[in-house]
Amino acid sequence: MGAGDPIQRLVLELARLPGIGERTASRLAFFLLRDAHDRGARMSTSLARDLAEALTIAVESVGLCESCRNLCQGALCSVCRNPERDPTTVCVVEGVLDLRAIEATGVYRGLYHVLHGALAPLDGVGPEELGLDALVERVRGSHLREVIVATSTNVEGDATALYVTELLKPMGVVTSRLASGVPMGGEIEFLDQATLGRALTERRQL
Amino acid sequence: MGAGDPIQRLVLELARLPGIGERTASRLAFFLLRDAHDRGARMSTSLARDLAEALTIAVESVGLCESCRNLCQGALCSVCRNPERDPTTVCVVEGVLDLRAIEATGVYRGLYHVLHGALAPLDGVGPEELGLDALVERVRGSHLREVIVATSTNVEGDATALYVTELLKPMGVVTSRLASGVPMGGEIEFLDQATLGRALTERRQL
Repeated sequence: MGAGDPIQRLVLELARLPGIGERTASRLAFFLLRDAHDRGARMSTSLARDLAEALTIAVESVGLCESCRNLCQGALCSVCRNPERDPTTVCVVEGVLDLRAIEATGVYRGLYHVLHGALAPLDGVGPEELGLDALVERVRGSHLREVIVATSTNVEGDATALYVTELLKPMGVVTSRLASGVPMGGEIEFLDQATLGRALTERRQL
Repeated sequence: MGAGDPIQRLVLELARLPGIGERTASRLAFFLLRDAHDRGARMSTSLARDLAEALTIAVESVGLCESCRNLCQGALCSVCRNPERDPTTVCVVEGVLDLRAIEATGVYRGLYHVLHGALAPLDGVGPEELGLDALVERVRGSHLREVIVATSTNVEGDATALYVTELLKPMGVVTSRLASGVPMGGEIEFLDQATLGRALTERRQL
């Protein structure tokens, strides 16, 4: 198969997706082409055509929220547009899936700031790529009281949380981080040392 | 998010791919949209656009080989077009990945017949869906000597092999199946009972 082969080209594009290797990409490509044949290659109902259309429409109509960098249509996302949200609190998250997970709890009523990643200087991800300049601008021009840093509890997430805290400290805004400890329904016996150690250190008085 | 939301629509289309659940689909959709934003939503270089284009081109230009049902451009695939292949032997495979695996061995010089599946009556996959009528036509109108059934050694693969054998028996063509037994580099000690049992039953004289 040459470089101009449309099957090979489709496999290569699919293999650029995160978590999809060349073997899975081949599988998906053959599935898509087989499915398209079943439905008639000239018909407009195959998954391959639907997917191509959904991709084109999404790329053309979806952008970043001008305020919080959430993915959305139009200038502002549905959270930033909602007048019932508390504008004095901003929760910093690594990605849109994290934002959705926090929304699903129903506990949080403030706004967000989406980094779309975490600090990883070796991979070329610095403060600019994460939109931290925009976060500083946001804090400067508003009545923000608290910034909750909800990054992951791994090396990149911890480094990002530290960086954000140092960045906002001179601006007089309170920064906080999600509590760490025993998960709900968790049994002490089976907990890893790091989590149990953290739960002990951050114990709270009853 | 409503049904008309382009992000949700992209997630749903991606989740129709085999082996991709809604969570992975969300991850892929956010990756694609974030990547497209990085490169500028109006530019033509993002993975989302490349993928949409590759899908459209592949669906329009790739079809099934008229003779063996391999995926190809034009009427006949490269194997069927090759005059050096032995037209008296046909190897029946479940899919294009199986065909490629057999080609990679360099051992086989005959032609193929691609089923694009295996018999699974409960899922609505019968002889017509597998193109077995086309296989019978092929055997009838040719000088075929042997049909090698290279289906998987699971329930569906075994049923398919049995069905093909019964189908071709009255037509005077030899049917055979791939040998089962100890894999190359395999250690007897760690072999599963079924494989070891088969290797014993089908032992060959030295």
